[in-house]
Amino acid sequence: MKPLLATAAMAFAASTASAQDLSRTLPDAVGHVAPALESYSNDDLFSSVWKGEELSARDRALVTFAALMTRHETDNLADHVALALEAGVTPAEISETITHLAFYSGWGNATAAARAVAPVFDERGVTADDLPAVDPELLPLDEEAEAKREENVRGNFGDVSMGVVDNTRELLFRDLWLRPDLEPRDRSLITVAALIAAGQPEQMTFHLNRAMDNGLTQEEAGAMLSHLAFYTGWPKVFSALPVAKEVFEARTE
Amino acid sequence: MKPLLATAAMAFAASTASAQDLSRTLPDAVGHVAPALESYSNDDLFSSVWKGEELSARDRALVTFAALMTRHETDNLADHVALALEAGVTPAEISETITHLAFYSGWGNATAAARAVAPVFDERGVTADDLPAVDPELLPLDEEAEAKREENVRGNFGDVSMGVVDNTRELLFRDLWLRPDLEPRDRSLITVAALIAAGQPEQMTFHLNRAMDNGLTQEEAGAMLSHLAFYTGWPKVFSALPVAKEVFEARTE
Amino acid sequence: MKPLLATAAMAFAASTASAQDLSRTLPDAVGHVAPALESYSNDDLFSSVWKGEELSARDRALVTFAALMTRHETDNLADHVALALEAGVTPAEISETITHLAFYSGWGNATAAARAVAPVFDERGVTADDLPAVDPELLPLDEEAEAKREENVRGNFGDVSMGVVDNTRELLFRDLWLRPDLEPRDRSLITVAALIAAGQPEQMTFHLNRAMDNGLTQEEAGAMLSHLAFYTGWPKVFSALPVAKEVFEARTE
Repeated sequence: MKPLLATAAMAFAASTASAQDLSRTLPDAVGHVAPALESYSNDDLFSSVWKGEELSARDRALVTFAALMTRHETDNLADHVALALEAGVTPAEISETITHLAFYSGWGNATAAARAVAPVFDERGVTADDLPAVDPELLPLDEEAEAKREENVRGNFGDVSMGVVDNTRELLFRDLWLRPDLEPRDRSLITVAALIAAGQPEQMTFHLNRAMDNGLTQEEAGAMLSHLAFYTGWPKVFSALPVAKEVFEARTE
Repeated sequence: MKPLLATAAMAFAASTASAQDLSRTLPDAVGHVAPALESYSNDDLFSSVWKGEELSARDRALVTFAALMTRHETDNLADHVALALEAGVTPAEISETITHLAFYSGWGNATAAARAVAPVFDERGVTADDLPAVDPELLPLDEEAEAKREENVRGNFGDVSMGVVDNTRELLFRDLWLRPDLEPRDRSLITVAALIAAGQPEQMTFHLNRAMDNGLTQEEAGAMLSHLAFYTGWPKVFSALPVAKEVFEARTE
Repeated sequence: MKPLLATAAMAFAASTASAQDLSRTLPDAVGHVAPALESYSNDDLFSSVWKGEELSARDRALVTFAALMTRHETDNLADHVALALEAGVTPAEISETITHLAFYSGWGNATAAARAVAPVFDERGVTADDLPAVDPELLPLDEEAEAKREENVRGNFGDVSMGVVDNTRELLFRDLWLRPDLEPRDRSLITVAALIAAGQPEQMTFHLNRAMDNGLTQEEAGAMLSHLAFYTGWPKVFSALPVAKEVFEARTE
């Protein structure tokens, strides 16, 4: 039985984040300056929130990374990338998350994230072979849905900025979103996390619906909101809750 | 009379921030790159705004720290913590502000603030004894107001994310807000400052009302808006003004 | 003919940003961690977007600097200031942009920008003589428009915070906006860029109208939105598009 147990334990290790791994994301200064915050971190955030079964530790690590990157919290990124890798996010998925969020949270957040991640990749022997190709074979496009989206955006904003309309179509929906090294469900997940972190619930309806079309469950979405409250601050999540509520209700009608 | 005068002078020193203290928060590079900005800083912000009697220098230092922490301006925090300590904010209040704003502006802002504050505390001989206990005796809870708040939030968002509903009740309103080392009025003050700094006036109504229930005057709130304009930028305050106006008007009806 | 050509080439160099200059803003870590992002940077952002003729390279460099400064992306500022200087933005305009955006995006963004810019100025031999005077002769004020603006703001918010009302009049509209070392059109341009970058489209109507009153064309405004999408993230621009649309439509009625 022992090997089986060992295998199970390894699988478990790959899909969770231990309280020990998590506490590495907390600088010593916290205990020195705010012992109460250290206690909330260890007793609530790391031991309870991160263990919640409604959302996998792997997804929690991925949305946390997306939120920190969006907030340009470069001082925190290296520890959280290490955590994400230990929780089962692949280097290719980290790479692809950075590229994706360059478009969704700004180029400078992505270049700063690359700077923070490079030494972590080096340390772990991640090489170019582990990373997504520049020009991979793209996933098939849902032409009908894309035609509808494009028509809507061009109809609304074609007179304002054809550059935005054209780049959105060519770079985002006919290219970036079809890159195969991050599942569409995960692209949507990090996009929604980035919108919450950036305080842009007004842009969330389309992407939360897309996330759920791509397989994110309502339970997972609710757990993501609860998780992100710690990393983005409660008010960002309270501004996102009414939008999530509307999306959930519209989908069950 | 001399000792009395000296005492008075010390009390004065403890409740104001001198233009000299303030000018330490301005890096030399400013005069080098933007002499006009140096002049606005010294002649207007430090010599006039900070001296405004509608809001104490202690409160100004506290809301400035809250705003900078919320904006992740880690490069500026150490100087502003030193300033806050000199203006009469206690180390325990700084510590508690960091813990409080972990929940209201995100964990990474709080851990970065702890990193920036630790050397300032060390330098001034602040030890664990000066800081709030992890598990202090909590202030009494207004059960009726809390029941109403909880019912409202659960009714609105219980179907969306019970995690948010539960954590808001257990961690925030039955714990954090009752911690005794920062006055409820001051918790509200830093929360409102954080909401303005984060560009979230849509979450301000509840907290500005709570601040005023807890003793913040309308004159102080108005002066806080005027003060924060410099540290958050004018547009953040212009988006907060209509919300403050509504709150003020509703309270005088 | 050679000198003439050389002069033409220099003029050209002064008004564009070469792909080589631009690629200096991309840290090596990007190619190491996210080769796809490096490719999007070189093949799309630097080679195509920046070359778009609807907006000059000089204006692109100026709005990019304004956006990065507003986002407190201090790690990226030095390279982008160098780029701006090479694209024809003068040191005086950079200095004045920092002073202007202290008021429009917060003091800490401006002091951090000064820190990042100081070594670039030093390296290039920029001295105090190249920078705007502290107290220059101000541009003439449009008293009628200013009276209308002031009346509107005082009427709305005089009861909330006379400090904001007074400082807005004295420091911003009767002083900062009249400083001669940055054209009114450029002040408006960086203000609008800062509002988009800060996620504050709700404050954009007044300033985009003012920008267009001051000479910004609709084509330039549209190209700015398209350009900024890369540096602020797409969602910030999608939240700004409806406001731009309203402004454009109201001006053609």
